[in-house]
Amino acid sequence: MLKGLTRAGLGEVGTDERFIQQAAAYGFDAVDIDAFSFIERHGLEEAKAILAKNNVVIGSIGLSVEWRGTEEVFQNGLQKLAQEAAAAAALGCTSCCTYILPSTDYKAAHFMALATRRLRRCAQILGAYGVRLGLEFVGPHHLRTAWANPFIWTLQETLDWIDAIGEPNVGLLFDAYHWYTNGLSVADIEALDAHKIVHVHINDAPDVPVEEAMDGERLFPGEGVIDLAGFLRGLQRIGYQGVVSQEILAPASTASSEQLLQRSKAGFDAVFAAADL
Amino acid sequence: MLKGLTRAGLGEVGTDERFIQQAAAYGFDAVDIDAFSFIERHGLEEAKAILAKNNVVIGSIGLSVEWRGTEEVFQNGLQKLAQEAAAAAALGCTSCCTYILPSTDYKAAHFMALATRRLRRCAQILGAYGVRLGLEFVGPHHLRTAWANPFIWTLQETLDWIDAIGEPNVGLLFDAYHWYTNGLSVADIEALDAHKIVHVHINDAPDVPVEEAMDGERLFPGEGVIDLAGFLRGLQRIGYQGVVSQEILAPASTASSEQLLQRSKAGFDAVFAAADL
Amino acid sequence: MLKGLTRAGLGEVGTDERFIQQAAAYGFDAVDIDAFSFIERHGLEEAKAILAKNNVVIGSIGLSVEWRGTEEVFQNGLQKLAQEAAAAAALGCTSCCTYILPSTDYKAAHFMALATRRLRRCAQILGAYGVRLGLEFVGPHHLRTAWANPFIWTLQETLDWIDAIGEPNVGLLFDAYHWYTNGLSVADIEALDAHKIVHVHINDAPDVPVEEAMDGERLFPGEGVIDLAGFLRGLQRIGYQGVVSQEILAPASTASSEQLLQRSKAGFDAVFAAADL
Amino acid sequence: MLKGLTRAGLGEVGTDERFIQQAAAYGFDAVDIDAFSFIERHGLEEAKAILAKNNVVIGSIGLSVEWRGTEEVFQNGLQKLAQEAAAAAALGCTSCCTYILPSTDYKAAHFMALATRRLRRCAQILGAYGVRLGLEFVGPHHLRTAWANPFIWTLQETLDWIDAIGEPNVGLLFDAYHWYTNGLSVADIEALDAHKIVHVHINDAPDVPVEEAMDGERLFPGEGVIDLAGFLRGLQRIGYQGVVSQEILAPASTASSEQLLQRSKAGFDAVFAAADL
Repeated sequence: MLKGLTRAGLGEVGTDERFIQQAAAYGFDAVDIDAFSFIERHGLEEAKAILAKNNVVIGSIGLSVEWRGTEEVFQNGLQKLAQEAAAAAALGCTSCCTYILPSTDYKAAHFMALATRRLRRCAQILGAYGVRLGLEFVGPHHLRTAWANPFIWTLQETLDWIDAIGEPNVGLLFDAYHWYTNGLSVADIEALDAHKIVHVHINDAPDVPVEEAMDGERLFPGEGVIDLAGFLRGLQRIGYQGVVSQEILAPASTASSEQLLQRSKAGFDAVFAAADL
Repeated sequence: MLKGLTRAGLGEVGTDERFIQQAAAYGFDAVDIDAFSFIERHGLEEAKAILAKNNVVIGSIGLSVEWRGTEEVFQNGLQKLAQEAAAAAALGCTSCCTYILPSTDYKAAHFMALATRRLRRCAQILGAYGVRLGLEFVGPHHLRTAWANPFIWTLQETLDWIDAIGEPNVGLLFDAYHWYTNGLSVADIEALDAHKIVHVHINDAPDVPVEEAMDGERLFPGEGVIDLAGFLRGLQRIGYQGVVSQEILAPASTASSEQLLQRSKAGFDAVFAAADL
Repeated sequence: MLKGLTRAGLGEVGTDERFIQQAAAYGFDAVDIDAFSFIERHGLEEAKAILAKNNVVIGSIGLSVEWRGTEEVFQNGLQKLAQEAAAAAALGCTSCCTYILPSTDYKAAHFMALATRRLRRCAQILGAYGVRLGLEFVGPHHLRTAWANPFIWTLQETLDWIDAIGEPNVGLLFDAYHWYTNGLSVADIEALDAHKIVHVHINDAPDVPVEEAMDGERLFPGEGVIDLAGFLRGLQRIGYQGVVSQEILAPASTASSEQLLQRSKAGFDAVFAAADL
Repeated sequence: MLKGLTRAGLGEVGTDERFIQQAAAYGFDAVDIDAFSFIERHGLEEAKAILAKNNVVIGSIGLSVEWRGTEEVFQNGLQKLAQEAAAAAALGCTSCCTYILPSTDYKAAHFMALATRRLRRCAQILGAYGVRLGLEFVGPHHLRTAWANPFIWTLQETLDWIDAIGEPNVGLLFDAYHWYTNGLSVADIEALDAHKIVHVHINDAPDVPVEEAMDGERLFPGEGVIDLAGFLRGLQRIGYQGVVSQEILAPASTASSEQLLQRSKAGFDAVFAAADL
């Protein structure tokens, strides 16, 4: 597994180039950035060179297409996806991710039909460039009622949705926080096919009842109560070899980005060691 | 358009062979029967001969696969679908239909994902034999709350679901009762692509507020308040050339099947005449 | 059916705006132009206004993606297809066409596999904007051996390929010249489902043995030996209601574009009259 | 990896039950048999018990559907595929395989289009039961010209065809003989995604020029010139964990099935040892 970073939780880490340098400096193998704008700023060759020089890869790009709103917004957003996928592929990144809110103001069944068609289109375009689409189920309980109608939030529901979408390049973005807030076990990870996992997020949860764990109050790995050693061992056991990216959705910290990077490094060191990795 | 009959509303009309003879005798062009069991009883050649002799075609077969329950029930049911599709095709029938209950005890979004995958499988198997799958949206208001969670019941939702299923051979079973109970207009029909309509049902509604029209209290065409002349003209205008089958879901009548067939014929004559067809 | 023009055979007909005005002036309903660049030059609102003022629609755009070369060329070309499809849709055009060369220097079976995947991707992107993909089979005999290996050129092969591609929005570009050079009859048209026809080309062939009719030596409708009245009647009978665009692939003429437009008008008038349309 | 046997090369090994017992007796983990007829003869529970008692699994079933002939033959064959898939799944087998002849009397491009549609249908039906479809490319040179037109025979062509088919559950049946006769290397294996491999065949080739290695003159593993240790190490390195089944297509031997099983065991022992497995 490759150790990765997103910007979430790192404060003002600077430009993509600086972010990549810092990731390398603190022992990380991957960053999740927007490949398209990175190439736009640097040109393809320089962008490649920056990654190569720092021995860092791009873990995943985010799906920029808004598939949760009107058809017009969706169709507009879709226009640049092929370029974004081509940019990711040109930099060796084969993962693009989006998240699923567990409730919706739309009528749930109808929205599921619309979203199935829309995400299939996204997957088809990504697939033309060898890029996979990872769907992140979102576990925190408070979000299940944040909008009028329940949508989906469990691992099984998400696997079933991936089957409904029906494209070979769709899989899971598997986040430790959502694994935890769904009450899942290491055995649930071991029952997965590693091939189904497109990307992994890691972060920790405060010591509150699981039903009260808020989506935006996450902790650095090792600082909370999630069995991250078990999480990583489970992934290891099924043969997952991709990126594990830290994503700390939390109120802004007063610490410097160097301090936060140091804390990230310490967290990864701790939980990977605990997992014997 | 071809005038067709289902058994619903005709009382004890007898064997398939007798049903076909009676349909012909009362001026109908089509019957909706189970092609597979019809061939099983008569053999393919005799089955063809019975239809040919009476100048009657099969309008549609019903989808026997139970896609609304457990995965096990679904997988079991799917095992004979290819044979049923082959039987339909062998008798020249290219339509297979199922209906969508407007509410469900399952979590709606998850059920939509499961049902999308399952109906796609059905469509794929039917498609191997040139048979189309028609989905019937169901309008009566009382069914929208008959189970715990709302599912889908409108024309637009159903068209969106057809897109989500994504197979070329999936379209609508368009039923006059559901058109009426959804409050749709002739203009809504005229906005359709005739190619999207796999099969049509016709029947009439009692003179009660539309919200109170019960699914199982339908009337013979022309005996109620639905603008069936407008319904048929709309279908004619967009170029629909398939079967329009009567389906009278109603409490059992004390009349003989001959009387009911006569009433069906009179109803069709009246509404087709009113539509200048 | 709508009478349409491509630029092929019309000489220097000028800008898109002038082409549209001329098409209208000579009694045509449609032009085949590149919607994307038309909008780029005029802006969407003015582009719409030019079409509306002249009562002209866009019949079809061409598929700009090169699917016959390397994977790299394909992936590059695919990047702008979504924008082109969005442009077409914004101007009310729902057709995008490409042609199939009847022989290839690639190993035929392998190229068919590659091309199936590539055209499916194109269809998927077009489909996100409600645009259909029309595939034109190419009949002239000399092209069947112009490259090392035979590919496909018949109507049936093309229909089978459309099934192999498997997207609901793929159909035929049906060209009178290829109908003729394949030795097809009016009955072959009447056996088609109108829904399978995305776009139609019309032009005529010189009075030479059909095996010697060259792809680039076409005549204006009515000036040659093709039974265009039968061709049009066949399309009418199956309910085709789309555009029939003239496409005269031929050596440059010394006539003015006005003379060529006049000849086009005369040709359409003659063959549509002969077809009682 | 699991060591498996097909009947090919074992002489008269008897009923499925006896075959399973013998496989176990000679140290094998898997047999390739027809799950459907096995269940028909024994009933599901007894069939399961026979496998469990012998600690043997079914490696793969063969695709019984004839997809290389007429459409009628295809449609007939397809009718029982769902039952066969259900039978395989009920016994825990998730693999179904077919082979691709490297030349064809059909026009190659057209046949590729037809075969793409047909194998997609097969994959869709198998997929409803969680069964994957493995395609075996066939390398021996003499078969490339055994029929009128070249079809496909290379690894890359087959991977491209799998993409063209487009279903998530289609992959490779990877046979050592075809790897060898295609002149492939261990690096070619290491470039594969293990997830793409549905099933593996192992056997050896005589010491003749590779162009002269006949499809039906194969040797037991370790008795020939193929680098089977490299073959197995490559599979191991990419994480393949499925079945490796011996398939000796060769003239009938005069040896007893016990002798042939013994030779199979010795061969597997030798090449697995050479591969440090």
